[in-house]
Amino acid sequence: MGVGMDSCVLPTRHRGYYLVQTTDFFYPLVDDPYLQGKIACANVLSDLYAMGVSECDNMLMLLGISNEMTQQQRAVVAPQMIKGFNDLCKEAGSSVNGGQSVLNPWFIIGGVASAVCSKDEFIMPDQAVAGDVIVLTKPVGTQIAVNAHQWLEQPKYWSMIEKVITKETVVQAYNASMYSMARLNRSAAKLMHKYESHGATDVTGFGILGHLRNLASNQKQDVSLCIHTLPVFGGMFAAAEAAASAPDGINFKLKEGFSAETSGGLMVCISKEKAQGFCEELQALDGVPAWIIGDVLPGNKTASIKPDVKIIEVENTSLPPYSQ
Amino acid sequence: MGVGMDSCVLPTRHRGYYLVQTTDFFYPLVDDPYLQGKIACANVLSDLYAMGVSECDNMLMLLGISNEMTQQQRAVVAPQMIKGFNDLCKEAGSSVNGGQSVLNPWFIIGGVASAVCSKDEFIMPDQAVAGDVIVLTKPVGTQIAVNAHQWLEQPKYWSMIEKVITKETVVQAYNASMYSMARLNRSAAKLMHKYESHGATDVTGFGILGHLRNLASNQKQDVSLCIHTLPVFGGMFAAAEAAASAPDGINFKLKEGFSAETSGGLMVCISKEKAQGFCEELQALDGVPAWIIGDVLPGNKTASIKPDVKIIEVENTSLPPYSQ
Repeated sequence: MGVGMDSCVLPTRHRGYYLVQTTDFFYPLVDDPYLQGKIACANVLSDLYAMGVSECDNMLMLLGISNEMTQQQRAVVAPQMIKGFNDLCKEAGSSVNGGQSVLNPWFIIGGVASAVCSKDEFIMPDQAVAGDVIVLTKPVGTQIAVNAHQWLEQPKYWSMIEKVITKETVVQAYNASMYSMARLNRSAAKLMHKYESHGATDVTGFGILGHLRNLASNQKQDVSLCIHTLPVFGGMFAAAEAAASAPDGINFKLKEGFSAETSGGLMVCISKEKAQGFCEELQALDGVPAWIIGDVLPGNKTASIKPDVKIIEVENTSLPPYSQ
Repeated sequence: MGVGMDSCVLPTRHRGYYLVQTTDFFYPLVDDPYLQGKIACANVLSDLYAMGVSECDNMLMLLGISNEMTQQQRAVVAPQMIKGFNDLCKEAGSSVNGGQSVLNPWFIIGGVASAVCSKDEFIMPDQAVAGDVIVLTKPVGTQIAVNAHQWLEQPKYWSMIEKVITKETVVQAYNASMYSMARLNRSAAKLMHKYESHGATDVTGFGILGHLRNLASNQKQDVSLCIHTLPVFGGMFAAAEAAASAPDGINFKLKEGFSAETSGGLMVCISKEKAQGFCEELQALDGVPAWIIGDVLPGNKTASIKPDVKIIEVENTSLPPYSQ
């Protein structure tokens, strides 16, 4: 089956068993090393979850400790980050067995998630049919939230958005997005089976439309995927618009669907009849909402966002850590 | 079974099937990007082979492209290195499906090798018994060979060894070690089953004695592992001795067993009766010799090198690329 969308799915030498695996590593993006470790782990596992694989048989940790940090900085940061990674892996019902760590100019954190699966344990992301809807399990806007939080200390950048947002809202959006990135998509992966999903992908570096295009081009049926609704962390849509229209501004292309996400939600194709139950049960399990954001239409395996896309401002304080 | 010696061995959710996997990545050490790609691949796979696992079900490639290279340098180096990695993976009967690549100050190359195995497909490295011997499948001395080759251009360092070695020998040792590092230990892994090996490890960064100590401490029986013979790339023992004794010299601790190796040989514990057949068949398959380098003795799970260890000068021109 070769390289799947988010994880590779390989037949093994043992009839009926497949190796589903994925790797991802990157550079830290939030201030808190413990949460950064969790985010890295959630981000790796998300690629398995997008395939409907809810059980990870093993995790390897990939680590580059910065040689530009002092001995003391390393002694604080590295153990915290490793602990965050390990703790979330345990929460996912798995554990870290093995890995590699090196010294590197930049700090690196990531991992390799593997699962040995029978055929009914994964869902190939190619079965969408016209009439399905698309569910998203986390709001978008992590990139602008992380940047806006950095801009609090950088007057030149802060001036781009200060008219449309308060510092308090930026901090709340940053916290909400940080906890969102550190949250597992595992319940969604389980519910994909119960509600008979027709395939999913997760939202990361290419932005929501980038990943939706991949998902669309991967379909067996002649369908198109169209987004009509974008749930965004509170205040982040206004911040992105202001940053884009400022003189010498920065255009994240959030509304266009290309703002990079880290450890974003799953986009799940599912029949219209089952979507409501999926969202409600996910809310009950994880305590956070999911949204029906688009439709599967007859088409030519492309994806788009409606020009008049509806923006849902997700109240940051309704999400963890505020709500827990 | 948790973290094994060289690979982790994890039970899966499917009775009788285990996930054996390993990851390794590092920074380039030879000039030739194509061979460097092969070396990285051989180095990753070697950890599977040390467990007697000869079939890799999937390889992921880990890549960091240097942002300190020019666009043009990258366009030459990266494809060559990737091709070397892919080509050797194919030679190993496997293929690369997935991975991650980032921009990084230093070039990074490595991978993740995974195999789904039934219990008879791997050999836990804990079954050595007194009376066994230890077989080594590649000479040691890669570190000094790579360094001596760099010293050809650095008069200050070259002066340490110029009295004991010719430039021609250094180039031959460098070539021989480069091809040795790029050679798979796969045949050895297969023969471990045929000749009923009691466990093995591969020789890499901790040097031959470092890895032998790990292997010794891992044993179930009260045994010690003792090296009586060291096969070294031709000229490299003399070079290491000269470098160590020079004023402001560099001590690689080659004779003491701590000189780092990259993609070194397997050290295989095997009964005395079967060792000869193992070595002969390996020579027939791979066209390169293996050596009986030590004994398994009654003891307390420690490892040592005899003070009067016998040095075998391996003729560099008897090894590939000269001999092929």
